[in-house]
Order: sequence, then structure tokens, then C-alpha cells
Amino acid sequence: MKQSQLFTKTRREAPKDEVSQNAQLLIRAGYIHKEMAGVYDFLPLGLRVLNKIVNIIREEMNALGGVELQMSALQDRTHWETSGRWDDEVLDVWFKTRLKNGNETGLGTTHEEPLTAVMKDHIRSFRDLPVYAYQFQTKFRNEVRAKSGIMRGREFLMKDLYSFCSTKAEQDYFYEKAKAAYVKIFERLGLGEKTYLTFSSGGSFSKYSHEFQTLTEAGEDTIYVHKAKKLAINKEVLNEEVLSDLGIKREDLVEKKAVEVGNIFNLGTRFSDSLGLVYNDEQGKSQPVVMGSYGIGPSRVMGTIVETFADEKGIVWPEAVAPFNIHLIGLFNNSGSVRAAADKIYRDMTSKGVEVLFDDRDVSAGEKFSDSDLIGIPTRYIVSEKTLAATVDGSIGAIEVKDRKTGKVEMIKI
Amino acid sequence: MKQSQLFTKTRREAPKDEVSQNAQLLIRAGYIHKEMAGVYDFLPLGLRVLNKIVNIIREEMNALGGVELQMSALQDRTHWETSGRWDDEVLDVWFKTRLKNGNETGLGTTHEEPLTAVMKDHIRSFRDLPVYAYQFQTKFRNEVRAKSGIMRGREFLMKDLYSFCSTKAEQDYFYEKAKAAYVKIFERLGLGEKTYLTFSSGGSFSKYSHEFQTLTEAGEDTIYVHKAKKLAINKEVLNEEVLSDLGIKREDLVEKKAVEVGNIFNLGTRFSDSLGLVYNDEQGKSQPVVMGSYGIGPSRVMGTIVETFADEKGIVWPEAVAPFNIHLIGLFNNSGSVRAAADKIYRDMTSKGVEVLFDDRDVSAGEKFSDSDLIGIPTRYIVSEKTLAATVDGSIGAIEVKDRKTGKVEMIKI
Repeated sequence: MKQSQLFTKTRREAPKDEVSQNAQLLIRAGYIHKEMAGVYDFLPLGLRVLNKIVNIIREEMNALGGVELQMSALQDRTHWETSGRWDDEVLDVWFKTRLKNGNETGLGTTHEEPLTAVMKDHIRSFRDLPVYAYQFQTKFRNEVRAKSGIMRGREFLMKDLYSFCSTKAEQDYFYEKAKAAYVKIFERLGLGEKTYLTFSSGGSFSKYSHEFQTLTEAGEDTIYVHKAKKLAINKEVLNEEVLSDLGIKREDLVEKKAVEVGNIFNLGTRFSDSLGLVYNDEQGKSQPVVMGSYGIGPSRVMGTIVETFADEKGIVWPEAVAPFNIHLIGLFNNSGSVRAAADKIYRDMTSKGVEVLFDDRDVSAGEKFSDSDLIGIPTRYIVSEKTLAATVDGSIGAIEVKDRKTGKVEMIKI
Repeated sequence: MKQSQLFTKTRREAPKDEVSQNAQLLIRAGYIHKEMAGVYDFLPLGLRVLNKIVNIIREEMNALGGVELQMSALQDRTHWETSGRWDDEVLDVWFKTRLKNGNETGLGTTHEEPLTAVMKDHIRSFRDLPVYAYQFQTKFRNEVRAKSGIMRGREFLMKDLYSFCSTKAEQDYFYEKAKAAYVKIFERLGLGEKTYLTFSSGGSFSKYSHEFQTLTEAGEDTIYVHKAKKLAINKEVLNEEVLSDLGIKREDLVEKKAVEVGNIFNLGTRFSDSLGLVYNDEQGKSQPVVMGSYGIGPSRVMGTIVETFADEKGIVWPEAVAPFNIHLIGLFNNSGSVRAAADKIYRDMTSKGVEVLFDDRDVSAGEKFSDSDLIGIPTRYIVSEKTLAATVDGSIGAIEVKDRKTGKVEMIKI
């Protein structure tokens, strides 16, 4: 894409009311626009990053045997009344609204209830199980405070997968597979090193649930990390029992701030019991379906990546989620031949499928460089009169390549 | 995809309260689930069709020079108060809700206001124009009645593009290009023949706007069609003046029911004036930006396609939007060798990139055929003991191919 066609501009200052680093940088670089606290628009660069994250997660969900669908945001309250989660005292993040006929409806904060209701139309026999259904869907949560940028939105994209199994053993088996898939996803997203499988409270059907927590000062959670075992314990469940369960000594733990980028949860028969989702087993006996839920917020992941890798100059994207692979910068200095050479390099790379953002604007080199640092594409190619005259490996005509993360510069042949 | 892995089941009856043919068929075939009136979940087959429609539209929007972004559903009311469209008396389809702090917010029914506000951060000079920004985004409209299935949802997917131009001439030029792109889109979607460019009321900045209306008895609009000129006039603007403008005689018009599948609209400076979106022209003088809007509802298109092509047996998808290209049906009849042969054909086709739904279930041939008719994939491949023993062009082993639309059957070599 040519930068002249990208309507977004970088800016020196983020909105005064924006206190989070991720949103400040993303707004300044033109990735997002703040609609109101906790509500952001994804501008072209931002949507590209979000889609890259989504696609990595989608590939791993499909590899798990997941089938993709998309549930509605508007909710039939009857399912939630049946499960006991319609009341604001029980689920305190509802946005509720009314149909013209006066009936109250709510905006989905999660989808256990409606998806369980869907499955009642489709699951009858043990032969129909297991089912792993997932979606990328916009959730609405009426948070009291929303000060963490896109790491905690009032409206945000969520990948939520729900497993429907015939037995606890089948569910446990999938749970472990999902855990491994999550480890792989965070590795692919570039967050593997800083992300810890974290033991958290489990509810009625299993002692613990698991969170994936990424270390960052911007996180709202406190976890206790055991570096050697590559696991952590959420502050809320840290006690002698969990230490004994995990065979861990308290003195080996280090307290850290972290953000929950994913979670997996055994639901047992909590929702199938209350909503009546049953199947006939091999003996023809009616049994409740055993469920689990598995969430990752792609927009939260995006904010976490910004917080994790940004430096004083701006954003630094890992290769896998960068909006473009190469930021091609032409320093034309009124030279038609430099412009033509840069344009040819742009066309050649694009035709080979390389995703290139080409800064073809008539602005100063300084402005191009500082915009490029702020935008944070991993590799910068500079084409100028100087590079075109340079000799590399005996041939004239070169590109200066600079790595955004390390700052390392080298010259390569065109 | 193997049908045994697809959790959805076909059903004989749609919900009793579902009166529209499109939703009845889509529910019975397992494409969608009714959450409540006007609100539907897209199950795996339904999401595949919706994504096909989205991708066709996206390609044509990109070809127009459009840049994709994604706006929020939750709306900052101040922009709407400024434009005068916050009041329910003015815009009567708002869903409104409240943040925890008591502030009222609404769910976006359209996005002129917030996108104009975004552009105020990015457009300064004539050099920044034109901009064509579009999104695929979920709209919420609090309709009094929602009886048309996915053709008129309270929550639905919308492609909306907004053009931002420096002059009326630039805007008019793009408007014509967008018109041509829309004609192409409806052709690609299989609706070209039945879709008419329809003159409709224009507002303050141009005499007419244009709708794209597809003829169907399920439509809520009445239009007057001039078949020879391949255009139509919406009932609401049919008068002597429009007839004279178009050089059309009233007696050449035929009254038809139709559904508005797209619309394009010159907004002039309606929103840039009220929200203060200006740019500096070449003389450094401040000018209001000239805008246009261009909508297509992919989910409405999907419903319209169902209404247009369905027959007494079920849905009939055009090739371009079908969830799969081929419905491969194995009639195993307890034969391991037939199952193995069908399985090999499935794997071979899939590895060649053909999208195949493979009915590998252990159910009767009759059930497989009636499900297949209902689901409506364009081409059916049948593999059975009989076809594997058949000789075509001197070689033994064939597939029976049946066209869903015409019912035409032929035998082909494996």
C-alpha cells in the first residue's frame, strides 16, 4: 500500500484523557481512534494487525477441530434468566436495552447461554459429540473503569470457543489439547516468552481454571511466577494448598504484574444442567453434556503486544502480526529517478506477495523516519540517491535495510 | 468438510413464529439459528455463505480504491447531538443504553457521524482527498416489526463505504464509479438479472439517490420497472417529473415487489457542515468536504438469494456464494470399499482446493438426498457401488453428477 493512499496521519500527542501507553501509541500512529473511554475504532493499519492476530488464532482453532460460527450480540433474556445470569447483581457488566415493544434485551458479554440453546437443536446422541464451536465476535462489557486502552474495552473482539463433550474424560482430553494450542498461539504471536500458564480459581467442576498471563507493568492482575517451571499462580488463589498441589515453594515465586490474554475453563454441566442440554448415551440414557470455554481477546492481545515491545520511539511489531512486513521509504529529494527506482522496488515486492507500506509522500526524511519508528513495521528499506549509487558485492544499486527492533543497518543489493 | 463433523442437523419444520421463507429454509437447513425476531446466529454453513458474499464485495470495494476499517458499535452521543440525529424522533431505530456512570450511549445504526469525526483528525488539505473508507460492521436497528428473516434484521452485517471528496465534481465522478461497482457486485452474486438500478428520493444535495432493488415477492418495497432500460423508479418518487427526467412513459412501467439490496447516496456537505469537517484548498481557503455513502447488507443479500432461487425442495445457491462447491455423497450401504473410494475422492478434491462437503454419515440414501436438496450446494457427486462399477469412456469407476438447479444428471470418470 502506498502511504499517500492511507488517509491516517501520525500525531505527536494522544488525546489528553488517554492514559494507557498502548492506546496512546496506537492513536498517535494512526492505528485506532478513540470513540469514547473503552471504545475504539480500528483504522486501516489497526484492522490489518487485528486480522493477522485473528488469523493465527483461527488456524489453531481449526487445527483443534473447531468449527467457526457467529452468534448475535443482542440476547434473548430468557436463556439468561434460566441460567440465573440475567440479574445485574450476578453479571455486573451487562449493557441492557429495550425493543420497541418494551421487552428488555442485553448485549452479549459472553455466549455460554445462547450457544447452549443452539446446541439443544442439534445435539441428540453420543454420536453428535464432541463439538468444538468457536467465533470471533464483538463483546460488550459495561466496565466501571476503562483506563487500559484496548487491553480492557467496553466493546472488544473476542475469540470464544466452547467444547461440548459426552464425558468428563473426553472434556479433560480436549482441555489439555486446547491448553497446548494456546501455548502455540502465544508463541506465534510473539508473546511466548513472557506468557505464563497461570493457575486460577476453578469453580464447581474443577479445582483450577487456567489463565494465560503476559507479564507487563500495564497489566491489572498480580501473579506469582515460577520461572523454572514456566508457570504462575494468580494472587487470588495463592495459598498453601495450591503450592502443595503444584509442588512449588513459596520462596521460588516472584510477584509480577500481568494481563490475562487468554483463559480456559471447565464448565462441567453448569450450563447444560440449567438449560437442559442432554444427549442419549450408548445405552439410550439421557446425560448432560459436559462443557468447557476457551477465550482469547485479539484486541487485548494487540494492546499487550504494543505494551510489551514498544520503545521510546514508538511501536515495535513482531513479524507475525505487523500490518506490513516492509516499510519502504523513498527519499526522493526531487529526483525523478529515485522515485522511479523506489516505485519499481515497491511493485516488484508487491507482485511477489510481500506486504509493503511504501512511503511515497513528499515530506522530509526526518518526518518519514520518525513516522516509521512510531508505526513500527519490523523492517525498513530505504531507497535514496545515496543507496542507488552504493556498491554491494560488486554491483551498483543498493537498499539500506534497518531492523526496527535492534536498529541494525545493512546494505543489500537491489 | 465431513458432514459427520458438522454439528448442525437439518429439520423438517422451522420455528412456528418464523414467517419468512428465507429464514425458514435457512433454519431448516442449519445455516442460521433464530435468537429472537430479527436477530439470528450464523452457524458454520451460514457463516461460510456470508463470508463468500463479504469477500466479493470487499474485492470490488478495494478495486474502487476503498480502504477498510472498522468502527465501533457503541456511539459517542455528542457527534449525533451535533448532527441533530440523536433524538428518537429524528432517527427512530436507535437502541440506546447507559454506561455505569449513567451516560447514555447508542448502538450504531449507520456511521456518518463517527466516521466524519474520525476524518477531522486526518484530513487537512486538498492533498489528503479523496478518501474512500469502508467497513463490514454489525448494525443495530430497533425495527418495530421484523418479519422478513435475515432480509430485515434488528442486528445485521452491513458494508458501508463513505466517500470524502474535495469537490462536487470529484464526488460525482466517484458516485458513478461506485454505481458501476455495485452493478458488478450484484452480477457476481448471481442477482444481476433481477436487480434494478432504482431512482429514489435524494435529499438536499441531489435530486435522486439510487437504490439497487432485487425483484422478489418477499420484498417490502414497491418499484416501477422499465425492463428495456433496465432501471426502475421507487413508488415514493414516481411522478411526472421523474418520468420526464428519465424520458420514460408511465405505460412502459410494471409494478413489482422488490427488496433494496444496496443504496448509494450523495450526502453533499450535510455531515461535514454540521460536524465541521473542512480542508484547505489549493488557495489555502477552508472548504467543507463533500461526502457520499454506499451501503450493501451482506446478510440481506443472503436472504434475497435464498428467496430468489429456492425451489420446493430447498435452497439453491449460485456458485459464487455456495458454502461448498461440491456436495459429495457416499452411499456406503455397509461397503468398506465404497467408503474408501469416496474418502479418497474427498481427499483428492480437497487437496486440489475444491471446497467439498462430504456426506460420510451412516444414514439412508433418501435422507442424504433430501438433506442435500435442502442445503442447496450447486453440484452433487454421488459415489456408490453402482457408480463405482459403471463404465464411462471405456474406464470402470464413475461418479454420478447432479446439478441442483436443473436436476440434470451425468456420469463422469473418477
